[in-house]
Amino acid sequence: MKMLINVPETVVADALRGMAAAYPDLNVDVENRVIVRRDAPVAGQVGLVSGGGSGHEPLHGGFVGPGMLAAACPGEVFTSPVPDQMARAAAAVDSGAGVLFVVKNYTGDVLNFDMAAELAEDEGIQVGKVLVNDDVAVTDSLYTAGRRGTGATLFVEKIAGAAAAEGQPLERVEAIGRQVNDSSRSFGVALSAVTTPAKGSPTFDLPPGELELGIGIHGEPGRERRPMMTSGEIADFAVNAILDDMTPRGPVLVLVNGMGATPLLELFGFNAEVQRVLAERGVAVARTLVGNYVTSLDMAGASVTLCQVDEELLRLWDAPVRTPALRWGM
Amino acid sequence: MKMLINVPETVVADALRGMAAAYPDLNVDVENRVIVRRDAPVAGQVGLVSGGGSGHEPLHGGFVGPGMLAAACPGEVFTSPVPDQMARAAAAVDSGAGVLFVVKNYTGDVLNFDMAAELAEDEGIQVGKVLVNDDVAVTDSLYTAGRRGTGATLFVEKIAGAAAAEGQPLERVEAIGRQVNDSSRSFGVALSAVTTPAKGSPTFDLPPGELELGIGIHGEPGRERRPMMTSGEIADFAVNAILDDMTPRGPVLVLVNGMGATPLLELFGFNAEVQRVLAERGVAVARTLVGNYVTSLDMAGASVTLCQVDEELLRLWDAPVRTPALRWGM
Repeated sequence: MKMLINVPETVVADALRGMAAAYPDLNVDVENRVIVRRDAPVAGQVGLVSGGGSGHEPLHGGFVGPGMLAAACPGEVFTSPVPDQMARAAAAVDSGAGVLFVVKNYTGDVLNFDMAAELAEDEGIQVGKVLVNDDVAVTDSLYTAGRRGTGATLFVEKIAGAAAAEGQPLERVEAIGRQVNDSSRSFGVALSAVTTPAKGSPTFDLPPGELELGIGIHGEPGRERRPMMTSGEIADFAVNAILDDMTPRGPVLVLVNGMGATPLLELFGFNAEVQRVLAERGVAVARTLVGNYVTSLDMAGASVTLCQVDEELLRLWDAPVRTPALRWGM
Repeated sequence: MKMLINVPETVVADALRGMAAAYPDLNVDVENRVIVRRDAPVAGQVGLVSGGGSGHEPLHGGFVGPGMLAAACPGEVFTSPVPDQMARAAAAVDSGAGVLFVVKNYTGDVLNFDMAAELAEDEGIQVGKVLVNDDVAVTDSLYTAGRRGTGATLFVEKIAGAAAAEGQPLERVEAIGRQVNDSSRSFGVALSAVTTPAKGSPTFDLPPGELELGIGIHGEPGRERRPMMTSGEIADFAVNAILDDMTPRGPVLVLVNGMGATPLLELFGFNAEVQRVLAERGVAVARTLVGNYVTSLDMAGASVTLCQVDEELLRLWDAPVRTPALRWGM
């Protein structure tokens, strides 16, 4: 499998150097692998810190900036960052108002963020935590006890980040983050396998003519394989899987997310089908975001995430944000 | 080749329905295939109209909005839109200040935009035109007499769009657009072939272990094939090919553009190498943009575009813009 890289060993460091060059508003520490908004710490604001394995870009580094994350810690590809990274990030962004760790539910991430919380608390930093576990496809998975954390991470980081930007206290920012996660569900499909730089060949086999329903963002197995389906059939399956698990009592945010290699032209067409199914099921849509946000390297496919919002969450979603990957209102 | 579509015949219409659902600020006419900013025409402003074959998203529809395009006309995949589309778009966005057609240099586009200009002028609309022909890889190509239009389209649409938003007159907006094109050069590489929905299989053969240097955004042949190169070697080749053709006398805008299927992680690493080569060649960088902007469906690879800017062009580049794919300052 051909890749636009130098050698697998330097992929993450090379990418961080490239981010540093592109985004002068970010302070990118290539050696220690911490991406911090340049004006951190911001007085009176809780600092959101997230991180996880690389390979899901723009998540998380692309979400660092005013109104969203204060810092992100990229691990090696599909590998948790180490506790030192998160502790260093916490120290860099804590203004005295505390930090909130946003953690996707994978065993390594959970352990390492817990250890980082202890390190930060030893330094006198108040630490809150939101665990993201929105993927309804499977309970327990290759790297997860319980549900995997996927697309809802974007909603948690944006909405809790907006609350932090308003100067809300740590307990409140944490509660909002948890509310967003509890109100969110996701389902993903793969049309092709994913290839990591280290392995250099697909990490699983997906025969021509088949797709995998319920795929994880590291290529973890989903619910089942089927002969290739149309965009409309996939939307029916994915949205219904989500709505089997949640009954929105109000409007939802919709994320139609590309896994990486699926053309935007196809993602827009898929969004049309997702919206059709939601209308058929009587679910009102407040806002829709379409694009590649929580990716899996070169995997083809897409995921759908719904987040039920009340007026307050919707207001925070609409609040200004300025990051490499999400930007509006400033 | 698996695709996230219903049937090839409805790919463009499906995508337009999905765009309409995602972007309430856009008026998407699915039947007539015209995407117009909802508040058009804007009094006193020249309206920029672009378009071309689909399959390059977010170009052009994703660039419609305040500060950039007033309207976009998507054709079938890799096929020029028809003159009626552009004439209809011109009528929708003309406030009396005239319209500027931004045309990528492909034979079909050039002919059809010329016919559209006649139709619009017959209706009393003043029409200017900027032809984009920035790709230094080859002179004459599969669908082009002269150089192909690629990444510089984004620079032309953003910078001329900012001039239009300031209320500058048509002749001035046109002159700025031409200056941007004349100051821009691009070079692209493919790591994999592209598959169109209609064909369903790759449109050309690229053996495992080889890349194509100088690829076009429809998979048109480039300069040569070579055994796979590192990111650093590719950056050397691409940037040097550009600098063989231009000698920047001032800072440049840099676009490191993904062809569609190359992970953002790799694009950032490639950007680090592009910046290295520019530094070695003594070229100062004013701004850098990294991402998938002028794509070729599921092709893997990347292109580099440089645009030499003076103070005025840089000011217009930095001016506020609010479109689906480029957004800052509002």
